[in-house]
Amino acid sequence: MARYEQQRQFLKSNFLEFKHIKTDKIKGVAQPPVVKPFDPDSQIIDLPKVSREVLRNGNMFDCIDQRRSTRFYSAEMLSLEELSYLLWATQGITGMNKNGLTLRTVPCSGATHTFETYLLIMRVEGVQEGIYRYLPTGHKLLFMFELEQMEQKVDAITLDQPFVPNFAKKAAVLFAWSTTPYRSEWKYDISAHKKILIDVGHVCQNLYLSSESIGAGACAIGIYDQKLIDEILGLDGEEEFVIYLGAVGKKRE
Amino acid sequence: MARYEQQRQFLKSNFLEFKHIKTDKIKGVAQPPVVKPFDPDSQIIDLPKVSREVLRNGNMFDCIDQRRSTRFYSAEMLSLEELSYLLWATQGITGMNKNGLTLRTVPCSGATHTFETYLLIMRVEGVQEGIYRYLPTGHKLLFMFELEQMEQKVDAITLDQPFVPNFAKKAAVLFAWSTTPYRSEWKYDISAHKKILIDVGHVCQNLYLSSESIGAGACAIGIYDQKLIDEILGLDGEEEFVIYLGAVGKKRE
Repeated sequence: MARYEQQRQFLKSNFLEFKHIKTDKIKGVAQPPVVKPFDPDSQIIDLPKVSREVLRNGNMFDCIDQRRSTRFYSAEMLSLEELSYLLWATQGITGMNKNGLTLRTVPCSGATHTFETYLLIMRVEGVQEGIYRYLPTGHKLLFMFELEQMEQKVDAITLDQPFVPNFAKKAAVLFAWSTTPYRSEWKYDISAHKKILIDVGHVCQNLYLSSESIGAGACAIGIYDQKLIDEILGLDGEEEFVIYLGAVGKKRE
Repeated sequence: MARYEQQRQFLKSNFLEFKHIKTDKIKGVAQPPVVKPFDPDSQIIDLPKVSREVLRNGNMFDCIDQRRSTRFYSAEMLSLEELSYLLWATQGITGMNKNGLTLRTVPCSGATHTFETYLLIMRVEGVQEGIYRYLPTGHKLLFMFELEQMEQKVDAITLDQPFVPNFAKKAAVLFAWSTTPYRSEWKYDISAHKKILIDVGHVCQNLYLSSESIGAGACAIGIYDQKLIDEILGLDGEEEFVIYLGAVGKKRE
């Protein structure tokens, strides 16, 4: 098992080994921005206020019981209210802590929230097909650009796994979560990276359960073309890059 | 950022780089057991069947909205029905796939489910204080042993962070998830480890939401004494070791 040894080390808690490291935070380096800046002249959509009304079956027991990775979807579109709810459930801001950091619908080590949520929107009512970014502050959606041949590109990103979308089995939206690791490295140094991966698992599980509660299904996608998705989204692949994907669409009856 | 480079690489999808690796699965090596064996002569508790009746507020919207990491708990004990529900919500078996692998209440890459759930039970009605292991097959609880000075040991494991338990702010149960990485390495080789961390995030998020739905609160704990917890649980620290902890207790009114 020697070839796995280093990889396995990464899974462990190394706090005691590295507790004497002077993190950038301790050194007094300024904290990096907690959300990615954006051009205020961009096309921005105000997302509908979220409420219980969007639920189709919102019973926690049923949603946990019925959850499955959903790989085939109905032709039904998502409504903007539903997309708004899914974004809120996965990265919505629900408070601030005493250090001015955002508290969200998902827990995150040290409230560092290193993620940005990009959306490849294919079928959402009243929303133009294209690439978007969620703006958690103010709960808005930023239109980035149209993507030609989106379906073929999604197939390429997901390495033609039997997922999303083709004409028979389309997902409505592909969530692509990026990380900006320095937001956590600033505080946790080389202990940051284990935390970042666990934290994106928290996020995606909320996508699963919130999808179930509106009659939709989700499928996490961990195997993808790193270079291609980063290029498409205009990420540098070093300071920010995609770490996980989640497809969502309405379930077939 | 050079010192973070290798760590950051770990966060990326390396499928294309390593797609030509011959995994043990491809080489025809026998699949490792999907759950850890146990001595059938052990003391085993049948867990109560889970149902919606355990819910206090089972509305998905409310649970997502109200979720917070809960670090202070009431003196109220958890019932065995509640513990049964939390175990089911985090690792319960809800089906089998066509390859004979378990499908669970949480998604897992390739249904490899590398986790075992250990419990440090402090305050559950009708259950002796001590160390237990969840047996997902058959939904049972295996009593392992009593642990002397449990509270002090939990404080030591969690490095005396202001968590669980002391006399004023006790958690009822500390979940300790171990991984047996070879269960995933067998199929994914050196791509396994990123997946394992994300997958334990899925698990813990279900602990958060299911706790909320029964009037309890959870707190994930990523900073812990690796060696101490592995020693206490009798894990070798190489083929199986703890990767994440979650405390649960009833909320203060």
